[in-house]
Amino acid sequence: MVPSPTIIPIIMAGGAGSRLWPVSRDSMPKQFIELLDGGLSAFQATIRRVVGKGFGRPIVVTNNDFRFITAEQLAALGVEAEIVLEPERRDSAAAVAVGALLAERQAIGGGTCLLLASDHVIGDEAGFLNAVREASSVAATGRIMTLGITPDHPSTAYGYIHPGSEDLGQGARSIERFVEKPDRQTAERYIAEGYVWNSGNFAFATEVMLQELETYAPGVLAAAREAVDKAVLDLDFVRLDALSFAASPTISIDYAVMEKTKRGGVLAAEFGWSDIGSWDSLHAVKDKDENGNRLEGDVVAIDTTNSFVRSEEALTTVVGLDDVVVVTTHDAVLVSSMQAAPKVKTLVAELKRAGRREAGEHMRIHRPWGWYQRIDIGDRFQVKHICVKPGGRLSLQRHHHRAEHWVVVHGTAEVTIDGAVKFYHENEAAYLPIGCVHRLHNPGKIDLKLIEVQVGSYTGEDDIVRIEDVYARS
Amino acid sequence: MVPSPTIIPIIMAGGAGSRLWPVSRDSMPKQFIELLDGGLSAFQATIRRVVGKGFGRPIVVTNNDFRFITAEQLAALGVEAEIVLEPERRDSAAAVAVGALLAERQAIGGGTCLLLASDHVIGDEAGFLNAVREASSVAATGRIMTLGITPDHPSTAYGYIHPGSEDLGQGARSIERFVEKPDRQTAERYIAEGYVWNSGNFAFATEVMLQELETYAPGVLAAAREAVDKAVLDLDFVRLDALSFAASPTISIDYAVMEKTKRGGVLAAEFGWSDIGSWDSLHAVKDKDENGNRLEGDVVAIDTTNSFVRSEEALTTVVGLDDVVVVTTHDAVLVSSMQAAPKVKTLVAELKRAGRREAGEHMRIHRPWGWYQRIDIGDRFQVKHICVKPGGRLSLQRHHHRAEHWVVVHGTAEVTIDGAVKFYHENEAAYLPIGCVHRLHNPGKIDLKLIEVQVGSYTGEDDIVRIEDVYARS
Repeated sequence: MVPSPTIIPIIMAGGAGSRLWPVSRDSMPKQFIELLDGGLSAFQATIRRVVGKGFGRPIVVTNNDFRFITAEQLAALGVEAEIVLEPERRDSAAAVAVGALLAERQAIGGGTCLLLASDHVIGDEAGFLNAVREASSVAATGRIMTLGITPDHPSTAYGYIHPGSEDLGQGARSIERFVEKPDRQTAERYIAEGYVWNSGNFAFATEVMLQELETYAPGVLAAAREAVDKAVLDLDFVRLDALSFAASPTISIDYAVMEKTKRGGVLAAEFGWSDIGSWDSLHAVKDKDENGNRLEGDVVAIDTTNSFVRSEEALTTVVGLDDVVVVTTHDAVLVSSMQAAPKVKTLVAELKRAGRREAGEHMRIHRPWGWYQRIDIGDRFQVKHICVKPGGRLSLQRHHHRAEHWVVVHGTAEVTIDGAVKFYHENEAAYLPIGCVHRLHNPGKIDLKLIEVQVGSYTGEDDIVRIEDVYARS
Repeated sequence: MVPSPTIIPIIMAGGAGSRLWPVSRDSMPKQFIELLDGGLSAFQATIRRVVGKGFGRPIVVTNNDFRFITAEQLAALGVEAEIVLEPERRDSAAAVAVGALLAERQAIGGGTCLLLASDHVIGDEAGFLNAVREASSVAATGRIMTLGITPDHPSTAYGYIHPGSEDLGQGARSIERFVEKPDRQTAERYIAEGYVWNSGNFAFATEVMLQELETYAPGVLAAAREAVDKAVLDLDFVRLDALSFAASPTISIDYAVMEKTKRGGVLAAEFGWSDIGSWDSLHAVKDKDENGNRLEGDVVAIDTTNSFVRSEEALTTVVGLDDVVVVTTHDAVLVSSMQAAPKVKTLVAELKRAGRREAGEHMRIHRPWGWYQRIDIGDRFQVKHICVKPGGRLSLQRHHHRAEHWVVVHGTAEVTIDGAVKFYHENEAAYLPIGCVHRLHNPGKIDLKLIEVQVGSYTGEDDIVRIEDVYARS
């Protein structure tokens, strides 16, 4: 059996990935970042894995906050997909339900869904497709198939599946039980007893999943069905109805369905899989130098071994250390032992409790029109670098507490101030007095870059009155 | 004996201190940085240690590059001193010779010099003064006295002195020999045999030191004498004659004189001394929390022990590590094991070989009129934050390749453009076209802060034609 148009990939791209902080943050989580070589984000690699291979049109389920980056990264691949926006996080059961309901509409007369995480890495693409083919063929017999991974080490970072005695064909087994992340000793026992890793990727017949949701998680299914029924098409997005979706319980598909259903199955496979869940697992899948180091960006290391060092900006140096993770970004630095790397999640939770912006937000804030980044701040002033893509248009807006100076350093700006439109070119400056109604637009063919100097008694991001917005944000 | 005006402190403040990189750099070395509590740099603490205690007027020997910071830090203490500028580095023998020659002129009829490093920490000021008093009294008998430190651990970071059998009074001994930094085992033996640390601080009769220099390092003395004879008073500085001074051999006072003279002596003392030569020794003298950590600046550490973490700007986090040094600055990050911290010197040498600006220069560049810091750079543009102190006046200058936009964000600027003078206040912007002759002045009573956006084909620091400069730099 070859993949068929009735196999519809559902890509789950709404997660946050705090264990890869400070690179991965709520405002731009790991699936959208180029963490591996090849110039693609993990999300894009996932999309590419299933596009042009004979599958149906992908359904991407993501968070409303990630709609522009999702669309941008799909556009960069030249791929069309259905982008479904969750108004808030309800964990994976609700996302699976939404995906299955949309797949049911897409594939007349049923069909099979291939549910994929968007933040995993797969080394052996052929092995992956082979496993998908086998799992889908078993799924067609009415099983909800989990892609299990044959362990190559006693990982304490993954949940395990104990395969059952029933042979489902294609080498697949029934499921005896799911178990949580074990300690090392338990993990060794699991491996000896034939357990496999739970990869969190599934294949199932649409109707079977919907039936099992109806049986074991009716609240989730009902909320998802209403959210889909009342969804509106907003620009290119399927925007789920917020009130309906909010009614769904917050629960994972493992807890809601997989641990209860009698129709589960697991196919053990090996295809160089990792969930790159934390810095140590990312390091494990990377190529390393003769000292066991992986050095990325502006890094100098001496007398250092078995370490992962990544710099996004500042010169980063390491001296006389073994088995450490060092990650430096514009506004936050992480130094961890390799072993403690999963605890970064705890760290980020602590930072969030303390109300730290760095816990969830990057310095470079992506917007549908481009991005901006604060480069300086002080008493009564703030300086930003703003980049507007060709054709990008900021909202028509006004500030109550700050004036702005814009100095164009690249490209051409079309600036509207209180109704008057004027063009500014490189080395020209515009002044926007407090209270004026203004808009910035890039009418050109190259990026517009400008330095914005804000001066005023309050320079917070929330001092903005949006009067009109082409991206439906006002 | 109490300290007398005929004891003249000579403060050596020309060193670079690369082992405390990235905080200490050539452009602003460790003696001028507030590394310890109390709001003073180590240089200022050294000055305060000898001012108002009955000593003579201090002579500060420093490098030409540090003249403004030296003057500024003395002024902040309200202390007057003779600031002697070395046109280039010739190690400590030449500096001692210059200091002794100037002290000879200051103290008619001879006198005693107290030669102090400017980058050491002393915990017990009374013990220090007591040791100085005793050493000076022995020095008056014709000995060049070294302040030796009774070791409290087998340090491998210090040179040792083997005291001789001759009793010089006051508990002082003759010197059997100087030895280099030992390995740990040798250090333990040295301690068992009564060796003391060589602190690099001395007391001597001026004429004795000059005689010994004449005997053992005549080239150094001759060069120093000519450099002093031909020195010019430039603003408030004694500027040594460059050509004469350059003729001096580059050699330390230990090698040039102390290891050869028959007139050496050592006084063993304990006064909470450390040369804070590297991050581990700085950590050793700091107060620490219950986990043995010293966390400075915006730092969050979990499961971390016995570590020194200092952030000058970015949120810096440490997870699951023991015995590490983490230092983050605007443009460079250092992560080291505590033990390997002295190797930072090797790292910095490697960075210098690679031509890295960060090896020697800070982002914030201090000037006599204030400071500036680059906050962004890109193709054909650069952005700086400029701060001009009240009364500060930049040189009258011109650029060949860039225009500049100045947006005042604090205070008032007096801007001269091609002879026309205009005042700019907060939230006002000036434009300086390529090639115009301009000058920036702060005529006010508070700091002037402005954001400078440079636009042009070349934004390097060397595109500057200085037409006139109140600080004698043109």
